[in-house]
Amino acid sequence: MSHIKNLIPTTVNPDLQKERSSASFDVNEFAAWWQGGADKLELKRKIELAIFSDLEDGYGINHEYMSHEDLYNSTVKKVAEAAPKLKALQEKLNPGGKDIWPGCLFRVQSHGLFPANHPLATHITMFVDVVKGQGTPEQVEKWGTLAENCNIIGTYAQTELAHGTNVRGIETRADYDPRAGEFVLNTPNLKAYKWWPGGMGHTANHAMVVAQLYISGKHKGVQMFIVPLRDPETHMPLPGIDIGEVGKKLGMAAVNQGFLGLKNVRIPRTNMLMKYAKVERDGTFIASPASRVNYLTMVYTRCLIVNLNSSLLLQAATIATRYSAVRRQSPIEPDEAEPQIIDHVTQRLKLFPEIATGMAYDIAAKHMWELYDQTVLDANNGKFDRLPDMHIMSCALKVLCTTDSCAGIERLRLSTGGHGYHIAANLSNIYGNAVAAYTYEGENTVLLLQIGRALVKAWNSFKQGQRVSSAYGYFESSMRLKEFPKWNNSWQIIIQALQYTAAHKTRIAFENMSERIAAGQSQGVAANNTGIELTRAAEFHGRQFVCETFLNQITGPNAQNRSPALNKVLENVLELFLVQTVLNNLGEILRFVNLTDADLRSLQKRLEVSLEKLRPDAVAICDGFDYHDRVLNSVLGSYDGNVYPRIFDAAKRSTMNQRPVQKSFETYLKPLMKASL
Amino acid sequence: MSHIKNLIPTTVNPDLQKERSSASFDVNEFAAWWQGGADKLELKRKIELAIFSDLEDGYGINHEYMSHEDLYNSTVKKVAEAAPKLKALQEKLNPGGKDIWPGCLFRVQSHGLFPANHPLATHITMFVDVVKGQGTPEQVEKWGTLAENCNIIGTYAQTELAHGTNVRGIETRADYDPRAGEFVLNTPNLKAYKWWPGGMGHTANHAMVVAQLYISGKHKGVQMFIVPLRDPETHMPLPGIDIGEVGKKLGMAAVNQGFLGLKNVRIPRTNMLMKYAKVERDGTFIASPASRVNYLTMVYTRCLIVNLNSSLLLQAATIATRYSAVRRQSPIEPDEAEPQIIDHVTQRLKLFPEIATGMAYDIAAKHMWELYDQTVLDANNGKFDRLPDMHIMSCALKVLCTTDSCAGIERLRLSTGGHGYHIAANLSNIYGNAVAAYTYEGENTVLLLQIGRALVKAWNSFKQGQRVSSAYGYFESSMRLKEFPKWNNSWQIIIQALQYTAAHKTRIAFENMSERIAAGQSQGVAANNTGIELTRAAEFHGRQFVCETFLNQITGPNAQNRSPALNKVLENVLELFLVQTVLNNLGEILRFVNLTDADLRSLQKRLEVSLEKLRPDAVAICDGFDYHDRVLNSVLGSYDGNVYPRIFDAAKRSTMNQRPVQKSFETYLKPLMKASL
Repeated sequence: MSHIKNLIPTTVNPDLQKERSSASFDVNEFAAWWQGGADKLELKRKIELAIFSDLEDGYGINHEYMSHEDLYNSTVKKVAEAAPKLKALQEKLNPGGKDIWPGCLFRVQSHGLFPANHPLATHITMFVDVVKGQGTPEQVEKWGTLAENCNIIGTYAQTELAHGTNVRGIETRADYDPRAGEFVLNTPNLKAYKWWPGGMGHTANHAMVVAQLYISGKHKGVQMFIVPLRDPETHMPLPGIDIGEVGKKLGMAAVNQGFLGLKNVRIPRTNMLMKYAKVERDGTFIASPASRVNYLTMVYTRCLIVNLNSSLLLQAATIATRYSAVRRQSPIEPDEAEPQIIDHVTQRLKLFPEIATGMAYDIAAKHMWELYDQTVLDANNGKFDRLPDMHIMSCALKVLCTTDSCAGIERLRLSTGGHGYHIAANLSNIYGNAVAAYTYEGENTVLLLQIGRALVKAWNSFKQGQRVSSAYGYFESSMRLKEFPKWNNSWQIIIQALQYTAAHKTRIAFENMSERIAAGQSQGVAANNTGIELTRAAEFHGRQFVCETFLNQITGPNAQNRSPALNKVLENVLELFLVQTVLNNLGEILRFVNLTDADLRSLQKRLEVSLEKLRPDAVAICDGFDYHDRVLNSVLGSYDGNVYPRIFDAAKRSTMNQRPVQKSFETYLKPLMKASL
Repeated sequence: MSHIKNLIPTTVNPDLQKERSSASFDVNEFAAWWQGGADKLELKRKIELAIFSDLEDGYGINHEYMSHEDLYNSTVKKVAEAAPKLKALQEKLNPGGKDIWPGCLFRVQSHGLFPANHPLATHITMFVDVVKGQGTPEQVEKWGTLAENCNIIGTYAQTELAHGTNVRGIETRADYDPRAGEFVLNTPNLKAYKWWPGGMGHTANHAMVVAQLYISGKHKGVQMFIVPLRDPETHMPLPGIDIGEVGKKLGMAAVNQGFLGLKNVRIPRTNMLMKYAKVERDGTFIASPASRVNYLTMVYTRCLIVNLNSSLLLQAATIATRYSAVRRQSPIEPDEAEPQIIDHVTQRLKLFPEIATGMAYDIAAKHMWELYDQTVLDANNGKFDRLPDMHIMSCALKVLCTTDSCAGIERLRLSTGGHGYHIAANLSNIYGNAVAAYTYEGENTVLLLQIGRALVKAWNSFKQGQRVSSAYGYFESSMRLKEFPKWNNSWQIIIQALQYTAAHKTRIAFENMSERIAAGQSQGVAANNTGIELTRAAEFHGRQFVCETFLNQITGPNAQNRSPALNKVLENVLELFLVQTVLNNLGEILRFVNLTDADLRSLQKRLEVSLEKLRPDAVAICDGFDYHDRVLNSVLGSYDGNVYPRIFDAAKRSTMNQRPVQKSFETYLKPLMKASL
């Protein structure tokens, strides 16, 4: 196989090199800003150097050729071997931190270490946190450290085969038996089988089971229970436990998501998490005093999703942009050479808007994290008034970011033509990882309806002259206007147009719903019948927030910490993002905002100009996101741009190419060809 | 495993049964109409009964758990075993026809027989046809029957690693050696390796190689050459042939797409296909007299793609609609039971528009086939005047159908929530098969630009008062209007609005391009800079055609052959399709057509009403497409609606679930858990 290694040049593709040397700004300044500081960038690079440098050739692609079962077992090997190394590296590079262990099991570096994801993901990101966040001090002491050190491996079992986003609908039961001081857990029917928990299939030996609690036959709401699943020595399922994996999915091949049926499984009373709600030995139930705290967990998780999905979009954008600077196709002048495809205006329209979108959501998430920290401080002081708005806005961000990032990743994949269809381009894998978030942590349409109902409620308060929170401040500023002001092509007026449209979309949803109620429909039926308008109002509520946040972060006081050259590039990105947001939503905006034909032509012109302005900086901007080649894991997107040698190298690695003739030739193909059909 | 078989009830899910019994029309009438006659429907069902009834349990899913190599070999077995059976069945059920052999190797039934597709697909759909269509009588005699009977297996090798849609850019060379009377074929560099031909990896022993012909160093254009690849007895690659598969892709797992490098490969002069262009023994070159004939082949292929992709969309719609009638989630009234999710208005909006879209494209394709047959007749009489319009419209249909069907399939998958993420839902597989067509046979954006340039050219003729063909007749009818007439909510005015917008989009593209040329840009540069407007005009040109065709086919004279009940349902579908087309393109339409707020509210109302009207018939309409369960191959979409037992059954079939503890436990997981990290 030695000739394969030599196939890939050690030099950078000259087309890419040219792009880099003609960028208008300092890519290191961009990268340091993007990572939140030069020190953070440096540490990140040190970590990546340490964890990626000893991976063998083909590490990122070999698993694609394995059977489902081999893929699982080889991934367990990878995690088990990585764990002690990561822990040691944490002590060496950043003692006391969590960015390497367990960080590299789920942060961006995990994409490189575990290209098919891995079966300890749910244990690390959910089980440990839930024990520590919702357990009593005794429970944290008993299970927390064991879990952190992987002495036990857990998972989080909430969703059931027939019950998803509507948590109240789950059917798994936990009946308290006061004589034994135990809970008895049961799965009443097939539809109530737990479904989807990561690692549940063959990896975890504990599960955090979410179940309906009953005491003396009385329902006490949904609670969480730590249930041992497997024998700690043999790993065999314990009595009453019906367990297995859910089967192959379109992504997350190695996550080993499982199912679980419970039949009279008994656990001690102290296995119910009791930081908030409690069951005493005699069966006395003490309800949770703080249901609002749950909101914070949801906000936290949704911010993480926005971080993840905006990053996946920017990874895809990096791959497609680099490829577009290397690929040459279709002459612009009939008899000239084929240009870099990035020079086709239609190609730029496929690439640059996704860069802008990924940046906008990442920046919105950073802003949400600041708000989150403030809200946590407030909550610790007993102030909860920011919570509802935070909750609604985090829902909106989650929905818009997952929707836009998934659509964007697939557009980017398609922009790379046929080669994006290769697994080795990694774009389909990125899509598979991104799109799961469309459904989990609240299905997007269900969340939009929830936001829409909150908007209508806020509108009702606004109409009745009550004070509404600042998140809905644009209701007042929009409705104060007799008509929308003359279009002046500023960024501010774009924000204003989005807010004006959002306010009017909310108004219409409110009016339609009120009419239906007045005509005799119940609140629920009226809301269902107004579903389309509610979801669209919700979407605009989110869009105006993302645009306003992006504008504030780029043009606000932070700009002083950046060089003029960098700010200019960022303003180009901002300009593109705002203009494309208007153009993509024109059907709604034109309903309320009167734009002349000249205004529309100027918007189209601005779109074209901003694509032109970003052209020389596109590759360098992607470099600035600083994704390691192992993270991108793409033959189309590597830093050196040696696209064709890498595609060929990946093909040569196919297991099938290790022999010239496949075994089915002698047994099946040759007989078919020799037969007289 | 016997308990698993019993898991799936033999009864139909009562929710689905209820849907069927409350439909407003006769599903058998629908199915017969859809298939083009009761006799065709009957034959189709007979074929499917014969070919699907003896497939073993798990046939449609087992391959998902195999390694890449095992999947290939098991698929070769499937094809080799199916071939003689299909041929015999053809003789039995429809002697002399082609619908079973080779039809079932590529028509809709092939989705059931070969769920990962198969490596003879390109041989059957392209190699055989190209030999017969472009070979001389001697060549057809020599290779045609051998190929039809699979005594030789071929593939079609055009695209190269660095050369795709722009065929003129390919670099593979065939130099004629007049002394030997042979062509010498060479791949000059890595970028010129042939890439993507189906079956080329390890299956085909011949390739139709598209190469640049040179005679005495003089370029004679792109020609086709039959090149033997492998030894007929040993199947070993022949000297000078560097061959293998391209590696795993996001779909078409068993197609065995390959690469090919040629080094001084000599073939006889008579291996160049010479029905049109010819090379004589002494090297005299005779150019092809009929380049226009190639257009017909392209039109033919694009109509096939529209058939395929509209069918894939309707398969996905069938799966998601049946699932939505079975799945219950999220109460509409807070304390009521969870409804069928099809009763959520937002869910209907995800399902029914895709049904309408799939039907509209299928019907447009049927109309195109009629035009095609007429054009072939004309061509045989030396009349070619229909060809350019046919070509442009088939491009537009291909682009719009592949774009809309892929987006629709993914929306439908997402509409099924988490369970759509399962491979066993088959929605991701359908997507993978559909989305390849976005790129092949002319990448969609490249085609849109081609259409856009044709539009601008036609506009120029129109402006100069020259006669334009009927495909552009709406230029005149639109521009005659001083302003768009008052909106009257008719179907006709929707078509008129789309045509009016299409005409004005073309006008603007023409004006922008002319301005750029006037400012000194070359034709090519101006076209590139006007790329965004050109593609949007092209899109509207296609949309008005699809809408007008759908309207004519549903309300035209053919309606007399259908019952009033069926016509009423079809009119509901038509209404939804036209209204959604307007609403989805409002941003463009509102620029030219003045719709009042009342008009917009009435369109929104019509959307909601048409979703309501289709609600009781949705399941029955999907039944009417008559997709066999083996074709759908989906645990969510089977005719009996036993969704949860089937999901569970599929999970139980996972190879990993055949043992309770995986081998990595003892070797890797247990040591990790016992270690003190």
